[in-house]
Amino acid sequence: MREIKVGVLGLGVVGSGTLRILQENADDIAHRVGARLVVKKIAVQHLHKERAVMVDPALLTDNPQEVIDDPEIEILAELIGGVEPAHDYVLRAIERGKNIVTANKEMMAKAGHDLMEAAGDARRDFFFEGSVAGGIPIIGPLKESLAANKVREVMGIVNGTTNYILTKMSQEGAAFDDVLREAQAHGYAEADPSSDVDGWDAQYKIAILASIAFNSRVPVEEVSAQGIRAVTPRDIEVARELGYRIKLVAVAQQDPNGEAMQVRVHPAFLPVHHPLASVDGVFNAVLVRGDAVGDVMFYGRGAGSLPTGSAVVGDLIATARNILRGSTGRIGCTCFEKKRMQPIDSVETKFYARIHAADRPKVLASIAGVFGDFNVSIESVVQKAMNEDDAEIVWVTHRVREADLLGALDVISHLPAVRSVDNWMRVEE
Amino acid sequence: MREIKVGVLGLGVVGSGTLRILQENADDIAHRVGARLVVKKIAVQHLHKERAVMVDPALLTDNPQEVIDDPEIEILAELIGGVEPAHDYVLRAIERGKNIVTANKEMMAKAGHDLMEAAGDARRDFFFEGSVAGGIPIIGPLKESLAANKVREVMGIVNGTTNYILTKMSQEGAAFDDVLREAQAHGYAEADPSSDVDGWDAQYKIAILASIAFNSRVPVEEVSAQGIRAVTPRDIEVARELGYRIKLVAVAQQDPNGEAMQVRVHPAFLPVHHPLASVDGVFNAVLVRGDAVGDVMFYGRGAGSLPTGSAVVGDLIATARNILRGSTGRIGCTCFEKKRMQPIDSVETKFYARIHAADRPKVLASIAGVFGDFNVSIESVVQKAMNEDDAEIVWVTHRVREADLLGALDVISHLPAVRSVDNWMRVEE
Repeated sequence: MREIKVGVLGLGVVGSGTLRILQENADDIAHRVGARLVVKKIAVQHLHKERAVMVDPALLTDNPQEVIDDPEIEILAELIGGVEPAHDYVLRAIERGKNIVTANKEMMAKAGHDLMEAAGDARRDFFFEGSVAGGIPIIGPLKESLAANKVREVMGIVNGTTNYILTKMSQEGAAFDDVLREAQAHGYAEADPSSDVDGWDAQYKIAILASIAFNSRVPVEEVSAQGIRAVTPRDIEVARELGYRIKLVAVAQQDPNGEAMQVRVHPAFLPVHHPLASVDGVFNAVLVRGDAVGDVMFYGRGAGSLPTGSAVVGDLIATARNILRGSTGRIGCTCFEKKRMQPIDSVETKFYARIHAADRPKVLASIAGVFGDFNVSIESVVQKAMNEDDAEIVWVTHRVREADLLGALDVISHLPAVRSVDNWMRVEE
Repeated sequence: MREIKVGVLGLGVVGSGTLRILQENADDIAHRVGARLVVKKIAVQHLHKERAVMVDPALLTDNPQEVIDDPEIEILAELIGGVEPAHDYVLRAIERGKNIVTANKEMMAKAGHDLMEAAGDARRDFFFEGSVAGGIPIIGPLKESLAANKVREVMGIVNGTTNYILTKMSQEGAAFDDVLREAQAHGYAEADPSSDVDGWDAQYKIAILASIAFNSRVPVEEVSAQGIRAVTPRDIEVARELGYRIKLVAVAQQDPNGEAMQVRVHPAFLPVHHPLASVDGVFNAVLVRGDAVGDVMFYGRGAGSLPTGSAVVGDLIATARNILRGSTGRIGCTCFEKKRMQPIDSVETKFYARIHAADRPKVLASIAGVFGDFNVSIESVVQKAMNEDDAEIVWVTHRVREADLLGALDVISHLPAVRSVDNWMRVEE
């Protein structure tokens, strides 16, 4: 049986999972492909480190150039992460005629377009299923099975750490800081949790998904990202009372004429029957709304060694099939349109706002009056006494622009009877 | 831009949706493919019938052979349904060098293997995403994105009609017959509902999914199929009290050494937190359990003109991409193994049984004794008085063989104090 040689950059969490799957399922994979996938070289930082996978030490090198320059290697799996030097390695590998498989979300979001164009010009494959939502098939289905659709919206829970934290906060009524510490102790959150809890990780992922769904480049720096640090147990409690769950959602929508896109990451109220509302713990899910297919959802483990390895090896298999049929580069970069990014402050949704005010006559009317001045119309309002003097007033608006809501909240926060605007959040439908 | 000519057999529900998508999204599809998909001929039964889609009458013919014989047509979309004459048409089209796209579950389940082999020998594409779960991508992801995995289990809710009926029965406490009549009035069930409510439709679909997941031919006549006619409102109520939902599930499992498969359709108790338990109404979902990826689930509309059309057009796009790159037949028939089918009576699961007995001392003990005689060990038992004389006893067993359960229930039904064995059902985990 023919052998197809694979080179690997990086033997961390994803690299180990990839190697383990290639070893354990080697025979099945060979049957499915019609060729054996053989790892010929693996570039690592430290040659003598303990590994989570058994690897022949003779395969290891600490010089990535050895992998990139090896003429026998037909597919390079880039599993280092980060923009540089990964981007540089990949570009050089494409120049040397290699097909590329990567799980690198940051590189894809920030510099994926040029790499895909280079691969397309060279008629080489460039796959990156592992960069979004771990092992859940989503990039492949968007490019292939769902390619008949105009996609109106992609909405996902694409960060397992924040979903774990929000789920725990919801189950235990605990505060963000406490749950974060516990998540760090269990290895579900990093020592520096910013990339997850401030929404950057999700920002990269939704930029990638939006660019595929809408066939347009999405400048990642124009994707608005807000994390979950400001979500309080009280917000979660209020949401539940109103029939919602709070989730960190990554949303990409395009307007009906397909001219403008809005791409954003933020915590949001989701109605309890929303398909994403019951996605709990470290699980991820991506909802795609297409004009023909309607709503379809993809659900599973969004991270981890074997799940992400499953996506990487799936891409290696796709590449190998193309190599065998001489059809590498079969699907090139799909960004053939140039759509405008809509600024976040003009994006309309429903909103939730929680206001702490004096429990006096006419306070509610005065706040409502300010909302009216800013064209913020109200869907529901619930006022509750907090103690003898104070009340908590929870508002849910109809669809309004963020700029109008924030304008109103600014004025409201200066009303004499208002103690504080405690929080606000988008409400998705 | 190059044109790729498509021929269509059948302009019913799926055909109309397919044509509509090809018309409305023509430009996007052309960009994504790099060629225009042009429908050249459509074979219909009645030339002058009213259609749900605007079609140039010059494209219509009532002679399928005209479509099959047209040398310009490179892809044939078979959207008639049923085994013959569809199978014969498809085989002749393959002989004439055409690529095939079909949404025909019955033909694929009963005669798909030979067709795929013929297409493979001719190096032509043969796609059938629309045959299972409408527009939900599942066959493509199983063959591609998830190809790195040994799949242990596929479990799906793949029939919208029965899921709608069970959901309504559950919400309204209504009886099967009443909900069926209402579903027929609303067009959610056919005048002859057998194919849906007796489980044959789901039987075809799980046979198709199992053959792909396990790389082995699955003889559809050996797939056990039991429908939902025997499910009563009382079963649904009891299930809820015990923390379960009743769903018509299609299950395919293989044993750890990959030698035997069990493939079956039946109503089952699903724990309320099971990913499939909250799939309600006409929605479908398929859960795939892989050794690397873990649990992934695909959810969406499992039927309908546009959703199924989305799958058909997705397949047309995949075929067109392969035509452009000279790589048709890129993935052939994946049934390279020959696995044994395990008979249903030896398949082990937990079971539920509901027994109506005299409310007398020692009745429970005597029933439990019979279960013990048949090696049926009990996880839980709940006894409730029905009236002065009678009691209802609900049993949930540990994992046992169906043959042992049924042997026990037969003896139990003849115990003097037992009035009737009212129902039994598998309990999935």
